[in-house]
Amino acid sequence: MKRVFSHLTVQPDLILLQNASEPFIDDNFFYVTGLDQGLFEGSTALLYPDGGLDLIVSELEAETAKHTDAHLHTYKKKETSNGLFQPQLASATTIGINFAGIAHQQFMKLLEQFPSKQFIDVSDAFTKSRAIKDATELAHIKRACHIADQVMEKIPELTRESLYEYELAAEIGYLLQKHGADKPAFDIISSFGAHTAEPHYTHGKTRLHRGDLVLCDFGACFKKYNSDITRAFIFGSPSKQQQDMYDTVLEAQEIGIETARAGINACDVHRAVSKYIEKSPFAGRFIHSTGHSLGLAVHDGGIGFTDECTDILQEHMVLTIEPGVYLPGIGGVRIEDDVLIKKQGVEFLTTASKAFRRI
Amino acid sequence: MKRVFSHLTVQPDLILLQNASEPFIDDNFFYVTGLDQGLFEGSTALLYPDGGLDLIVSELEAETAKHTDAHLHTYKKKETSNGLFQPQLASATTIGINFAGIAHQQFMKLLEQFPSKQFIDVSDAFTKSRAIKDATELAHIKRACHIADQVMEKIPELTRESLYEYELAAEIGYLLQKHGADKPAFDIISSFGAHTAEPHYTHGKTRLHRGDLVLCDFGACFKKYNSDITRAFIFGSPSKQQQDMYDTVLEAQEIGIETARAGINACDVHRAVSKYIEKSPFAGRFIHSTGHSLGLAVHDGGIGFTDECTDILQEHMVLTIEPGVYLPGIGGVRIEDDVLIKKQGVEFLTTASKAFRRI
Repeated sequence: MKRVFSHLTVQPDLILLQNASEPFIDDNFFYVTGLDQGLFEGSTALLYPDGGLDLIVSELEAETAKHTDAHLHTYKKKETSNGLFQPQLASATTIGINFAGIAHQQFMKLLEQFPSKQFIDVSDAFTKSRAIKDATELAHIKRACHIADQVMEKIPELTRESLYEYELAAEIGYLLQKHGADKPAFDIISSFGAHTAEPHYTHGKTRLHRGDLVLCDFGACFKKYNSDITRAFIFGSPSKQQQDMYDTVLEAQEIGIETARAGINACDVHRAVSKYIEKSPFAGRFIHSTGHSLGLAVHDGGIGFTDECTDILQEHMVLTIEPGVYLPGIGGVRIEDDVLIKKQGVEFLTTASKAFRRI
Repeated sequence: MKRVFSHLTVQPDLILLQNASEPFIDDNFFYVTGLDQGLFEGSTALLYPDGGLDLIVSELEAETAKHTDAHLHTYKKKETSNGLFQPQLASATTIGINFAGIAHQQFMKLLEQFPSKQFIDVSDAFTKSRAIKDATELAHIKRACHIADQVMEKIPELTRESLYEYELAAEIGYLLQKHGADKPAFDIISSFGAHTAEPHYTHGKTRLHRGDLVLCDFGACFKKYNSDITRAFIFGSPSKQQQDMYDTVLEAQEIGIETARAGINACDVHRAVSKYIEKSPFAGRFIHSTGHSLGLAVHDGGIGFTDECTDILQEHMVLTIEPGVYLPGIGGVRIEDDVLIKKQGVEFLTTASKAFRRI
């Protein structure tokens, strides 16, 4: 994991990552160690410019931590953990810290315990390094995408009149795990009818009725890497408006996909998609970004298809392309795929059917 | 939510809580707002000593945020969010921050944007306030416990020869949601055989075989509040050693439960449990604490049944009591219940059978 250092202009003597308790776990801990399971609350990783790694973990997770080449140090009591890496810090002057992934309280403890050290923010280097996926990362993401695809293809079999949204969420979660996901990548969205117009709604006690739009947005987490896919369905026959919404979003997504390729400014993808929707009958109803970087985190940071993003797309980036239109009180449609950026375009990582399926 | 202020010796003019992106969400945001759904990435809550509340949220979550009495401010772009509460901070000198729940990077941005303010750590006040549950919190936890109980009672029906651990985890997750959980409280532990000896192992591709111990540790998350229950089962008939392990742990748990009541030092519960196990054939094999505070977080902070904890148990605290013994390479047993501390003892919140069930 030397490559993180290559993104730094000021080179620290080492990088120190430290997890607090759930949920304050820095996923870069898994990035630098390659560990693909375990919780590692209270654990610390020391990463050196030559690729060397020290891990300080609770003895409760010592077995799991052995699946790395790191030098392993274990503690019985959390309070003693910082003392365990005092020797490694002795000769270091500058220590890189992921300011975005450490709780302020823990940072203050490090400052107090090592007052003579200079702590510098290396969060940007992690974001940049993680934006470009290596072969192992890509293999995990592809598997996560394949699992999500398989579950998405089963949605029509899972739905019936009067089904609750939360029941569909339970079925999706079950199938994700049965197909090999370690867990769902995030809270499953399985919304019906007017709820499909709320992009951040997950699921509740609403029943499925004829004429409802059904929006399913979920992903698989496989060995810590995530997928993220969305499809919209119609229970029964679509109205003219529903069909128009679907056609508009599908066309917008195709425009996004055609625009994306290495060398393009990320914002241009969002602008191309927005421009198309703004000229449609659904102008003003596309209220979020066109997509985001995907990996160890579902929102993997850095690159995003927004109006402000000034990053240039590069080969081996993985992003979602997910335009949507939302009519409050009526319903919404979003279509989302995960793609790998290539020199000449994109490779689809998710491939579930994009027909406007009647269920 | 005035009660947080009552735990502070130095009174700030207001308390500011700020969420980053998943997973860096401060669950105190939900504590002070009472919101029981939504993600609220990038949101800020300002809490005043008179109980008043300002919420600054993305317009994508404005609908969800309306389920409070707070003054609502919405932003389109995250970069503008800190500007939105500049007026509220104008007359404030001292601002309380949860140092344990804010990423260092975000704290630095606040420092930069409001250089004349004094930021003080109020994390202890939240921990203390949250340790004592009010009626609404308790109702949510009781519901979460009831859901977990119902699923635990079904484990014997779900198991069969050659079942994979991950299949059982999928079944448990499904049933939790079908019974009304918003999601599982944490990664489900469904371990077989020798894996039951690893307290932090979750589930994998191991199949169930006759003679295996089966350990199930899971919880329901209901309106953001969690339960946490563990039972051990035997597939077939127990060996003498397995039966002895089970009997020892069950007796140890009963000792813990009999010791716990308001007014007792929390460490005394752990010591009573440890003492019993240390005198058993399983001396040295109880390698974690006897339990933890439970609520919005599964490990709710503050009070815990450890050797070091110096806190006095109080009425309306909710804790787990979960001794275990672990024989590496052979297997382990843990029995865990959630209890409410009362003046004269405890009230069981989880009630699933504690017979050593053959499945």
